[in-house]
Amino acid sequence: GDARAGRRKITACQACHGLDGLSKNPESPNLAGQVESYLVRSLTAYRSGERRNESMNIVAKELSDEDIADMAAYYASIQVDVLPP
Amino acid sequence: GDARAGRRKITACQACHGLDGLSKNPESPNLAGQVESYLVRSLTAYRSGERRNESMNIVAKELSDEDIADMAAYYASIQVDVLPP
Repeated sequence: GDARAGRRKITACQACHGLDGLSKNPESPNLAGQVESYLVRSLTAYRSGERRNESMNIVAKELSDEDIADMAAYYASIQVDVLPP
Repeated sequence: GDARAGRRKITACQACHGLDGLSKNPESPNLAGQVESYLVRSLTAYRSGERRNESMNIVAKELSDEDIADMAAYYASIQVDVLPP
């Protein structure tokens, strides 16, 4: 996926997941630095309805494989530093 | 949830999600700093089978509500710094 193209495609994602990939509400997960292949799998499962969530099923419905790849690449590309627990 | 108790309960989680909450394989998401209520919802849905994943359905099956709350609290408590994209 193309992270630069993805950044232009995440307009529908930002209200809940942020441009920075940090959740804006208690229902939505953080996506910053998330595993790219996991994001592709999640969006694909939301698109098909295999994974159910009212908002995500609607938003994912119209996405192409390329859109999914690009959006996943964008959120995966955000750098995250984890402080050891 | 009690993050200290959760740390003792995540033995089954570590191989894939790490003690540090960073994924150890391309199938598994990072959990470090994830939204606590999202983690509770995910584990609960894996336990009931509403959300399907072979490994997670098996692992979550025996968890109590308290286990889920504690494990979610542990992973949510890991500090994460995000570098602005």
